[in-house]
Parts: sequence; C-alpha cells; structure tokens
Amino acid sequence: MQPVGIVGYRGYSGAELVKILEHHSGVDPILLDHREDGGGASPIRNHRPLRHLPCTAEAVRDGGLNLVFLATPPEVSMELAPAMLDAGARVVDLSGAFRLRTPQNYQAWYKEPHTQPALLAEAAYGLPEFCRERIPSARLVANPGCYPTAANLAIRPLLEAGVMDRAAGIVCDAKSGVSGAGRKPSLKTSFCEVTENFSAYSILTHRHVPEVLQISGLEEGEFSFTAQLLPLDRGILETIYFRATGVTETEDLIHIYEKRYANEPFIRIFNPGHMPDLRGVARTNFCDLGVVFDARTRRAVVISAIDNLVKGAAGQAVQNMNLMLGYPETEGLL
Amino acid sequence: MQPVGIVGYRGYSGAELVKILEHHSGVDPILLDHREDGGGASPIRNHRPLRHLPCTAEAVRDGGLNLVFLATPPEVSMELAPAMLDAGARVVDLSGAFRLRTPQNYQAWYKEPHTQPALLAEAAYGLPEFCRERIPSARLVANPGCYPTAANLAIRPLLEAGVMDRAAGIVCDAKSGVSGAGRKPSLKTSFCEVTENFSAYSILTHRHVPEVLQISGLEEGEFSFTAQLLPLDRGILETIYFRATGVTETEDLIHIYEKRYANEPFIRIFNPGHMPDLRGVARTNFCDLGVVFDARTRRAVVISAIDNLVKGAAGQAVQNMNLMLGYPETEGLL
Amino acid sequence: MQPVGIVGYRGYSGAELVKILEHHSGVDPILLDHREDGGGASPIRNHRPLRHLPCTAEAVRDGGLNLVFLATPPEVSMELAPAMLDAGARVVDLSGAFRLRTPQNYQAWYKEPHTQPALLAEAAYGLPEFCRERIPSARLVANPGCYPTAANLAIRPLLEAGVMDRAAGIVCDAKSGVSGAGRKPSLKTSFCEVTENFSAYSILTHRHVPEVLQISGLEEGEFSFTAQLLPLDRGILETIYFRATGVTETEDLIHIYEKRYANEPFIRIFNPGHMPDLRGVARTNFCDLGVVFDARTRRAVVISAIDNLVKGAAGQAVQNMNLMLGYPETEGLL
Amino acid sequence: MQPVGIVGYRGYSGAELVKILEHHSGVDPILLDHREDGGGASPIRNHRPLRHLPCTAEAVRDGGLNLVFLATPPEVSMELAPAMLDAGARVVDLSGAFRLRTPQNYQAWYKEPHTQPALLAEAAYGLPEFCRERIPSARLVANPGCYPTAANLAIRPLLEAGVMDRAAGIVCDAKSGVSGAGRKPSLKTSFCEVTENFSAYSILTHRHVPEVLQISGLEEGEFSFTAQLLPLDRGILETIYFRATGVTETEDLIHIYEKRYANEPFIRIFNPGHMPDLRGVARTNFCDLGVVFDARTRRAVVISAIDNLVKGAAGQAVQNMNLMLGYPETEGLL
Repeated sequence: MQPVGIVGYRGYSGAELVKILEHHSGVDPILLDHREDGGGASPIRNHRPLRHLPCTAEAVRDGGLNLVFLATPPEVSMELAPAMLDAGARVVDLSGAFRLRTPQNYQAWYKEPHTQPALLAEAAYGLPEFCRERIPSARLVANPGCYPTAANLAIRPLLEAGVMDRAAGIVCDAKSGVSGAGRKPSLKTSFCEVTENFSAYSILTHRHVPEVLQISGLEEGEFSFTAQLLPLDRGILETIYFRATGVTETEDLIHIYEKRYANEPFIRIFNPGHMPDLRGVARTNFCDLGVVFDARTRRAVVISAIDNLVKGAAGQAVQNMNLMLGYPETEGLL
Repeated sequence: MQPVGIVGYRGYSGAELVKILEHHSGVDPILLDHREDGGGASPIRNHRPLRHLPCTAEAVRDGGLNLVFLATPPEVSMELAPAMLDAGARVVDLSGAFRLRTPQNYQAWYKEPHTQPALLAEAAYGLPEFCRERIPSARLVANPGCYPTAANLAIRPLLEAGVMDRAAGIVCDAKSGVSGAGRKPSLKTSFCEVTENFSAYSILTHRHVPEVLQISGLEEGEFSFTAQLLPLDRGILETIYFRATGVTETEDLIHIYEKRYANEPFIRIFNPGHMPDLRGVARTNFCDLGVVFDARTRRAVVISAIDNLVKGAAGQAVQNMNLMLGYPETEGLL
Repeated sequence: MQPVGIVGYRGYSGAELVKILEHHSGVDPILLDHREDGGGASPIRNHRPLRHLPCTAEAVRDGGLNLVFLATPPEVSMELAPAMLDAGARVVDLSGAFRLRTPQNYQAWYKEPHTQPALLAEAAYGLPEFCRERIPSARLVANPGCYPTAANLAIRPLLEAGVMDRAAGIVCDAKSGVSGAGRKPSLKTSFCEVTENFSAYSILTHRHVPEVLQISGLEEGEFSFTAQLLPLDRGILETIYFRATGVTETEDLIHIYEKRYANEPFIRIFNPGHMPDLRGVARTNFCDLGVVFDARTRRAVVISAIDNLVKGAAGQAVQNMNLMLGYPETEGLL
Repeated sequence: MQPVGIVGYRGYSGAELVKILEHHSGVDPILLDHREDGGGASPIRNHRPLRHLPCTAEAVRDGGLNLVFLATPPEVSMELAPAMLDAGARVVDLSGAFRLRTPQNYQAWYKEPHTQPALLAEAAYGLPEFCRERIPSARLVANPGCYPTAANLAIRPLLEAGVMDRAAGIVCDAKSGVSGAGRKPSLKTSFCEVTENFSAYSILTHRHVPEVLQISGLEEGEFSFTAQLLPLDRGILETIYFRATGVTETEDLIHIYEKRYANEPFIRIFNPGHMPDLRGVARTNFCDLGVVFDARTRRAVVISAIDNLVKGAAGQAVQNMNLMLGYPETEGLL
C-alpha cells in the first residue's frame, strides 16, 4: 500500500477524499495536519483511526509519501504545493490555484496575484476525458472546478462536432448543493437561510467561467453562466441552452456524445425522453448527460449532472491519482 | 360581507385562497363541495368551521354568490364555468382552461379539444399589470399560470422598451417548488423522490409556453423554456438570459422596470448588486425583479421570483376579484 | 401609534417581532441599533424603511418609547434592561436573563453570575395562561423559553388535576427547528450538517429545565428532558409520556385541558384520534395539544406543538406587550 | 457466483437490497418480477441491466436460486414464502409476516388472520446480535422491523444486566425518515406534507411494539413507544428513557454495551459526551449507541441510531443471508 497524504481533510472535499481512499486497493491515506487541524479523538470507542503526520516537507519525505492531495483554499495551495514537490511528493491540488493558464488570467478572476507562476505554467489540468495525456507524468495536477467539469463535459463534444451556433450564444444555468460552498460556517450556508430558499450568486461573473472558456474554446461573449444555490447537500445540475445547427433530431446529439465518450467509464448518456437528475449521480463519480432538441425552433437543451464532491472534486482527484500512479482509472470509484 | 364560493378548496391553491379570503374585509368565503369534497370535521375542538354549500347552480343562485373561484383541473373548469355563470356568479378560473385565445391553440398544448369555445373567446386574461382594463367588467377571468406570471412580468417591459435582442433568443430557466404540482399524491412528488434531488421536466414543451408568447409577444423560435422541480414547498424563481441592446449599464434596465411598474403595488425592483430569492416572496403576492448586465459581453440576466401559490395562483385570483368587485386591488393581500 | 423599540432586530426572534408589530394596530416599531447593528439599506428600491434609533437611554427617553423588547443574549439583556427601565421604558426581555427566581438558580444553569439580582426578583414571568395577573403592571417581563412554553402548557393542567403519576416520572422528548439556535453562523446549524440529519443535545441538562420545574411544580427527579434538532426552520413539538391515574379514557384528559383553557385564545385542543403537527402551528401564536391514553397499560402521551419563534418567542412577547399596554391580548396575533 | 432472487425490487428496501448485492463477492442478484413489476428499460444507454426472472416456483427452481428475499407486504410474503420454499429456495422475508411467535399475536397487531401458522412457528427471527444460533440452518428467516432493531439492540443488554428499573417504565421515543413508509405514493408521504413538518403516528399502538417485547422481555405495561415522521429520507433515531439502578456513572452503562457487543462488527459504542446522529449511520449497517446518565436524578437516556433501509431492512437481510449461505457476516456490508 502506497502512502498518500491529504491536507484539508476536515473540509467536505477532503473528507470525501479520505472516504474514497479508505476503500482504494492500492493506497494508504495519511492525514496531514495543517495549522489548526489534528486532535479530535473519534467519538466512537474502539474505532481504529487513520494515521496522522504533520504537514511538513520533512514528514512527507520521511513518510515516503509520493503523492499529496491539497484540499485547501488557493492561497494555501500556492504555499504548500512547492513545499510538497520539493519533498518529493507529486501533488493533486483541488483548489483553483493552478487551473488557469496565465498569472494574468488568475489575477483577473481571483483578485489576487499568483505567487507561483512557474508551477502554474507546469501544472496539468486534470479533466481526464479531455486532457488524459499529460496527467500520468505530471508532477502537479490541477483538479478542475465542479461547475466547469459538468459544463465542459457537456459542451466540448458538441463544439468539436460543430453543432452549436456559437454566435447566438450558449447559456449555462447552473445549480449546486450547499456543500460546494465549503464547510466554513457562514450566514449564507446556514440552514435557516437555505432551506425553503433558492438564490443566484456570482451572476455572469463566477470565477469558474474562465475554466469553461479555456477547455471548451468558447469566447467570453458567447457564454452566459449563472450559479445558484439549491436547498440540498450535494450535486450540480447544469441546464445548457443553445441553437443547434446541422442536426435533425435528438438522437443526432446523443450520437455525438456516444461516439466521443465510447470508452469513458464515468460518462453516462441518457436515452431520448429521459433526463439526468441529482439523485442519479449522488455519491458517484459519474457525469450524466441528457439532451432535448426541438426541431421546429432548432433550440436544444443539454442537462449535465454530477456530484460536486465526487466527479466535481474528490472522485476526480482520485481518478487523476490513479492515472498518475498507474492504477486502473476506475479503482476505488465504482 | 359578500359571499364568494371556492371550488377545489382542498387543493393547495384552493386552500391558499381560503386562507387569504378569511382575512379579506369585504367577502365571506363559502366552500363549494364538488364530488368527493366535503365531510372532514376539523380535528380542533371548538373550532368554528367555514360554511359549506353543494357545488350546484341552484345552491350558488340561492346562496347569492356573485363570484366563484374554480381551483380545479381544466376539464372540470370547462364543465363548471358555464354552470356558475348561468347561476349568476362571475368566475375566476385558476386552471389553464380559459387562458389561451383559440381552441386550436388550446388543443395543441393541452392535447384535448376545448369544449367551451364561446367562453374561451369571452374570457379576460387576469394579469392585472398588463390587462387591467378588461378585468373589472369581465364575467369570466382566466387567472394566469404561475410560470407565465413570473416570466411575463420580467420580459414584457424589456420587449416594450426594445432592449432585448430577440433574434439571439431569450432563455427562461424556471424552477418551482413542489406545491406547483398540486396535492394529488404521485411518485414524482413523494418526499423521498424530491428531497436531495433536482430535476427538469417538460423541457422546451411546457404548456405554459404559449401563455408567455401570447402576453409578451415573443415568437416561439425566440424563446426557450425549461421547468425544474426544487426540493422545497413553494416559490418560483426564473433566471432569464438575453443579449441587451441600447443599454450601457444595469441601472438602465432597472429604470425600465421602475418606470413601467411605478404604480404597481405588487412589483418590487431590486437595487444593483442585490437579487431576489424565494424566501423574500414566500407567502406574499409580490413579484420581485433583479437585473445584472455585463457591459463587456452585452449579456444580461433578469431574476423574477414569486410565490407560486400566491402571485402565481390564489393571490392573483384575489387581486382579480378585487378588481371585479370594486375593492382596493391590494385588499387582503398586504 | 405608541412607539416601541426592538433591540436585536436582526436575529430570528427579533425579526419575527418586527414583522408582527408592523401589523399591530396600536404600536409603531422602532429599530434600536446596538453595537454592530444598523446600516444595511434595503435591497428593494422605493421600499419605505422602518425608523432607527441608537440603543441608548437618551434616545429611548427622547423618542418617548414606553416599551422596549430585548431580543438579545442574557448577558446583553442584563446590561440593557436597567438602562431602558431608567429611561422610562418598560421591558419585555426574550432572553433567559430574568426567568429564574434566584441568582443561585441562574448561576447553576447558566454558568455565569447574575449581575442584576434586584431586577431578577422584580421580573414577572410572561406566560399569560398561568401568570396573567402580574403582567399588566410589571415593569419588566421575562418572556418564557420556547421549550418551557410548550412543556408547561401541556403539563401543568394535568398536574393541577392530579392525573399524572409523578413518582413514575414524566418524560418530555422535545424536538426543535433550527431557528431556535439563533442566527449566528455555526457549524452545528450549517445546512450540510443539519439536512438529512437529526441529533440530540443537552440531554437531561438543558437550561430550560428549571423553567419547567418552576412553573409546573415538578421536582427535578420527576422530570426527564431531551432537546433535539429537526432539519426544518421553525417549530417545536414535545412528546410527553406519563402514567395516568384517575382517568378511564382519552376524553378525560381532553376535558381537563378544555376546562382549564376554556377562555384562552391561543390554546387549541385536538379531538381524540387527531394529533397536532408542526405545519398546523407554523407562523401562528397557537399552542396545539393532543392526547392519547392507553387504558390497558395506563400509559399516556401528550403532544404539544408551537412555533418556536411565535408562541415560543416573538408572538408571546407581543401577547405580553398587549397585556402591559392595555391592548386586547390577541391584537396583531390572529 | 450463487444466484439469489429479490421480489419487490422496486420498493425502497428492495432497491437497497439490489444495490448491496451488486457489490457482494459471492452472489448474483436476480430480479423476480411479481405482478406489475418488470419492464422499464434503463434510461441510461449501454447500461448493463440485471437479469430478470418471473416470480414463479418453476423459474426459481430452474434458475437454481437457493435463496430468495421477499421485500413485499406481509400478505404477499405469506403467499410467496411457501411457494419459494417448495421450489427449493430458502427465504429471507423483510415484512412483518413471520416475526411474531403466534398467529394470535399476529392477528392482534396486524388485524388480519395469519394464513401460514406452520411457517410462522418454523421461522427464525433474524436479529443476529441476539439470535445468531438458529439463522445458519433456518429455511425461513424473518428479518426484524426497523424500529425493533434499534430498540432491542439498545434495551436488551441493559435489561440483561439488570440496570433498568422496569417498574418505573421505559419510554422509547422513535423518529424515522420517510423511506420507512415505503414507496407507494400517499398524501402522508407527499413532499409538501412532510417538508418543514414533524408529526407522530401510531402513538402507543405501533405494530412493531410486540417485536420489542418479544426480544427484550419487557411487559407491555413497562414500555411506551411513539413513532414519528422526520422530514428526511432515511434513518431511525430512538431516544430511550429509563431510571437506572445499580450504576454510578455513564461509563458503567457504556461498559455493559462494550462487553455485550465486544465481537459484534455492526455495533458502535460512543464515548461519554458524544452521541450518535443520523448522518453517522446513513448508508451503513451500523447501529450506533450513546448514553447519558444523570447521577443526581438516576435518570438515563440511551440514543440508538440506524439507517432504516440498511440495518433496519436490506443490510440486516444480507447479514442474515451471509449467515445462511456461509459467507463472512460482514461481506458486502462494510
């Protein structure tokens, strides 16, 4: 069993990562205590706890960890990634720190300067379905954002096939469960504010937008994106609207997905008349895709659903780890 | 106190109607028992119950009811409306039976022939903000659908002002609470199927679409609409996307709403940087509107929120009744 | 319109108080800004805001406020109550600061010394159904806790009637919505921790226990109480178990309640075979009571349901204000 | 891989059973179509479906099924169990049909005569922690009810240890998620009736009571039980109150559980100061137990939590199957 480290294991993504790795046949998860982490004996008697190590270069080197997950905010990831790499560990970073291609773009969307431009240039973007080549040998993998994962898996095959009228604009109306906002308490994620409520945020300006543009190839003026908060724990569903060209029925769009994803274990395509929902993807690493095309108006809708903590975070991170460490891509994920 | 009747008082819209009318200063709500209605003593001791009458022309005439609400399915409304009118009562119908302008259009969307074409031609559409003239003298008012109420109040002022690029298409992504599906038990509205879930239905083909086209003036090819089910009880939030022309900032769009709705008591416009949510409209007759315009891409988003059982059904029905019977439009609704 | 002040108007109880008072025919609510309160322009354009005043003795005196509600934590109430009284305002305090009879008892349960023992001795306990005499002339009313309100209204009539076997012990299993924990963000009240969850807290040691003992007359060893957190916004339901003596059927217990509460406008008694639930009391000032007695085992269950923010806090506070200022007790509350 | 059959695979318990068995290393789940079952192609393209067989003695014999799960109502189980046994399959029945010891007791609680008294006499009660001896060789195992599973695992060790004052009475206040009511649509389990609500049912008279008496050894007059509906999908939490004798601190009660359950893989005991909640057991076969003892009043509370669909139904059924077919008891369940 190879030891791998997790920083930020108390957050929702980090905790999900630990849960997945506990059932992985090849690795042994080790909790790396960073700042106020650590402590907290299990409430359950006779419960065998996981191993802890301090989150230091020394501990990582001595512990023989050759891979570390950073489930931390971008500013912490920028600080820890170089240290972990220096200690000989490869890194899968779940934050937005290393996803965009230039420090300028990072600063434009994250409102902070990027402190590790060389690593930003080196990082591989970890969306296996479209960027699988670079991941196995990468030292640093930037695990994609949850919204861009669902959006790019839905949009890029259709753009590649040339069936989206880009000039008319593509609309992506995204809805996320509350765990996407992280575990830190805030009024916005308090139960009484969320239950029996629904609200939009970061309308047209969400920092996940540039990831969609970067991978899909859309221009900013061609793409409208709104994020919204669902009164539920986990799941992202995106409703994507566009004008279709060169197709005559719903099946035509389904075939494009089928062909593109024929060998992808984590993409499921829905038959005409059926559409994905959040229950179907909860606690799985699947991305479910369904399509409706209205021939009279040439308008089409794609629905893309994932679990934001799995395919949108921890599951995809393990998928990347599997590629990096030479395990079957689905190990621990089915 | 004028007696007014309610048919379908056990359904969610009908029950909401009863609750509103109990606090109205001018009318006395009477429950009209239709088919399996009636019976059901209150579980609460010493609770003073409302009056019941059979739902017959005779009872309505003898009871001196000069207005009856039909909170019934379209096929029942088509059967009851002529009987109530013959009995001397004016009618506010909450179903889709009398909303569209032609029997052909009705049949196209409701998949059944219309059995009362003369009444269909006579009915006034009860969206006071845009159709207030005909309501006071109408014998039969068709209370608007919940989705079209939120959509038309958001879209029509912008179309009138000429700031929507119709050729690029307008997208309306609509989300509704479960009470919109009515009280009849079904697997789709069972708790375990809805909680922690989110799903779309009637994608691009919802029968409320023609009401939007009819009132807004949009062509079918210019408008994409998807309805979705939120895991909450009540509320509709619509996220409306379009390309704006002839405006330079968010304030320009807000001014259009402010001017158009200056004298409307039930429309609230949000300041830039603030957006409506469902909590804000729950149990009120308000429609809340907020706008974001992104000058770089010329893309805009409007959010329109109502309570589907109030402004989307019973509240608007009382608003129509107030106009018909000469009460202040807001009586019982603030 | 008499001006009355509200301190803590941003909290859930305070906000509920403002909402009730806005519809009261005799008083004009004024927001008293304490510490970080104030500011925060309405997101809604052209919305007429309520008046604000600083929360100082001077402002209260100059503003002619003759009653102030304190919807603040106990330590803040202990600080503000004397200042408001000195400024000539009577006080309804919604915290636990003035509910217990002795400073010793306060310190035992609240783990802090009481800083205003004279006021503690003076305060009237504001449960009108049992303590109505002292409230009209009181300078300071201690509004009861939410759990004790539901418990005492259920238990005391049965103890007075002598039908509870005290020696066998009375069990009160209480469940509350999340708004009972207040508006301050914490992990315990975060959406993702509460949804699809249910948990107990303060088992056998909740600080509301002494209020139940004080009003009901039970001894500590006769009473077991557990508080539990429901995944919903508002409402308290208590399931109370005891062995009944001197009764032969459910109706006997119902008659005791009926007789005791014959003139109480806010107590509703359920017929045999029916039991209260939380929907029935949501957003009302009612306490609903239902009973089951099993003659074979002599075991009985009473269910008591209130809205924790209304009869359990703001509604009861207005009920007390009505008694203090000479309005009908139900004004603003039906 | 041994083929095993599931009848009632569309219900919540049946579907959970299928999900568990798909990950079991030794058996191959086969869907047995009974009445309106069957049909229903997967909405997902290229999804490999499970095998179906008709639910007939012939198909079961020809298919070589040597075990069949009945996730059906009691009256269907009474009809199918003899047929399946005759066809050579052993049976695990998830209904209440074979749990009580006499036809008289069955009729008293289920209000229907028992049609298979010989099988009732033969059936082994499938609570492994207390009835493990008879299960491996049983032809027919009656899988316990969800409420009695949580109750008996909490109560029986304390009764065996003699620390419960039976004369004072034991109270079990039980709360269940909605999936416990099954998948058949009804108004009581409709989303809008359940969300933001909480209610009690079958107060003191639930048909699960005799299962608790039978296994724990309590007399009816010593035990009060109320079932309540939580606004969540899955989970049962029971709060159990009693007067403790012969113990001096919380640890004493914990030690009783520890000793009794030392070798039980599915019972987890909580340390003092910690208590189980529903999140902790969701989607697991664990029963979590926590205790509080108040030395001053000698009152104690035990909290017992399970997932009603796993340890309360499908998981325990697989645990029984493992014992019957000779697999490790935890196979497929960790």
